[in-house]
Amino acid sequence: MSDDLKQSILNRVAEDLVGIESKLSDNLRPHLDLVCDIARHILFSGGKRLRPLLMVISSRLCRYTGGDTHKFATIFEFLHAATLLHDDLVDGAAIRRGRPVAHTVWDNPSAVLVGDFLLARSLTIAAETGRPRIIRVIAEITENMSQGEIHQLMRKGAIDLTEAEYREVIRRKTAVLFEGACRASAILADVSQQKEAALGAYGLNLGLAFQMADDLLDYTADSAVLGKQVGADLREGKLTLPIIHALQNAGDGNRERMLRIVRNKDFSAAEFKTLIELLNHCGSLDYTRRMAAEHIRQAKQALAVFEPCPAKELLLDIADYALARKI
Amino acid sequence: MSDDLKQSILNRVAEDLVGIESKLSDNLRPHLDLVCDIARHILFSGGKRLRPLLMVISSRLCRYTGGDTHKFATIFEFLHAATLLHDDLVDGAAIRRGRPVAHTVWDNPSAVLVGDFLLARSLTIAAETGRPRIIRVIAEITENMSQGEIHQLMRKGAIDLTEAEYREVIRRKTAVLFEGACRASAILADVSQQKEAALGAYGLNLGLAFQMADDLLDYTADSAVLGKQVGADLREGKLTLPIIHALQNAGDGNRERMLRIVRNKDFSAAEFKTLIELLNHCGSLDYTRRMAAEHIRQAKQALAVFEPCPAKELLLDIADYALARKI
Repeated sequence: MSDDLKQSILNRVAEDLVGIESKLSDNLRPHLDLVCDIARHILFSGGKRLRPLLMVISSRLCRYTGGDTHKFATIFEFLHAATLLHDDLVDGAAIRRGRPVAHTVWDNPSAVLVGDFLLARSLTIAAETGRPRIIRVIAEITENMSQGEIHQLMRKGAIDLTEAEYREVIRRKTAVLFEGACRASAILADVSQQKEAALGAYGLNLGLAFQMADDLLDYTADSAVLGKQVGADLREGKLTLPIIHALQNAGDGNRERMLRIVRNKDFSAAEFKTLIELLNHCGSLDYTRRMAAEHIRQAKQALAVFEPCPAKELLLDIADYALARKI
Repeated sequence: MSDDLKQSILNRVAEDLVGIESKLSDNLRPHLDLVCDIARHILFSGGKRLRPLLMVISSRLCRYTGGDTHKFATIFEFLHAATLLHDDLVDGAAIRRGRPVAHTVWDNPSAVLVGDFLLARSLTIAAETGRPRIIRVIAEITENMSQGEIHQLMRKGAIDLTEAEYREVIRRKTAVLFEGACRASAILADVSQQKEAALGAYGLNLGLAFQMADDLLDYTADSAVLGKQVGADLREGKLTLPIIHALQNAGDGNRERMLRIVRNKDFSAAEFKTLIELLNHCGSLDYTRRMAAEHIRQAKQALAVFEPCPAKELLLDIADYALARKI
């Protein structure tokens, strides 16, 4: 079912994807070849373009007719790529989408500076909208993302991380960007406050569910499909909802067994299998799935203020797919 | 003379400095203590506040009466601090203004992320001006600064670095921020294109001269006064105008002697002294001083379109001081 849904979505966004790719290339005209090479390494490595697509489809839902939608949509992909460059470095990640990360192909300084460049590029295009409120949204996204990452960094490996803290971190580091992509099109299209808030709520909840599903995949996916090793989050000291829930709900014996694995970043494949059995035993993978599903429900619910139309249908399907996806 | 000039400038900007400090504190309300600590480490460590002062004085020259000048001026200090955090990391610097740099007090990831946060803070305040053209200026500054730094990084230790390349690097990494600070106030005040361009030219030339003077100080200053070791640029592989000029103009024998020192990052104090003698012999320190003086002349010349007034007098004095300063 998830493959059919994926294909149906891809058929409907095919033209937009072509438009977005072309604008990403056009707007990446930096001064130096090195900037271009690193930016292309992160930008053209099989990303789903979900954030710019959300902006484009939302703007259609809002009947925006001002043009330049594909160009303005690149704001959110450039911003996303900028944070990936910095976050991979901060996390000490090695692989993204099946390829070595930029700071290992080049070096840390280059990854920092090209991240800054992509952030600036995103900003330049945002300025071209001529809408200070859109700039404000971009600034808020950037403040939130850096703070979400810092929060995550400060609490790396902390086994007392609460579910509330986890939610705060994923809201800042992931969901506000989804929210902003949807909200920006509402601002561009000058729709009512009510509709802007609805699109914001859709994006925010979709982002929360998307990150929860992502965190779940780190325990359930096939490494080859995922493009990186399962268990990578845990090796980086990132405790996500499945583990947080299990540590909270396991009996003393199982909790101790889990902690031994969680605390040892060089856990073996067998230990990781044991951990997943314990997560299943505590119902933690199910719990994470249920929480993600609840946010998807809220995301879809938020769109109730819009009349039925193909764009709305597409946003509803994307929400369903975010939950069903395997990568 | 330079001490008297400095004191006279400080007397005239004393109230503005108090206003800027207070707005820097007010606008640094981040979510997390760690962000605050690192941001304060870089922001409140004896910076001259030159960039926000330029913005405030320029806005007075343009008779801007819209208020919030001290707040808007922080845009340029937050942006400056953000780039210092990233650049110190990129350069592998150890000391700034007599204190260990943030990425050694904390760590690289924190310095990267707090840099991103300060950039976002700068952007949020820029958005509050409600002027898309100011946002565009900020975006251009950020693109230029990251590309200037990348250029410098790519050509680290390159003994064939040309004076033209050096000028391009310092324009991007330093001068566009000065230019933007002056230009932003012209945009806020809605002055004529001619006056905006004049303030931009003042800032750009001041910035070029300021960086040349800075690069000169790395060879001529007293380490204790400078707050970091002299020769630090060369140890980081940064070839600046004095060296570029000398390598271009020395006879073969002296050129070889210089290259031996330049290529060895662990040069001794005696070797550094020899290098300075060679720079003097080639007239390279004088040449750099003359080039800086020429940009100061152009900076002052640009202000000719403005009627005499205390703000103009102050900008002219700041230009003179940029050349005469000892730190």
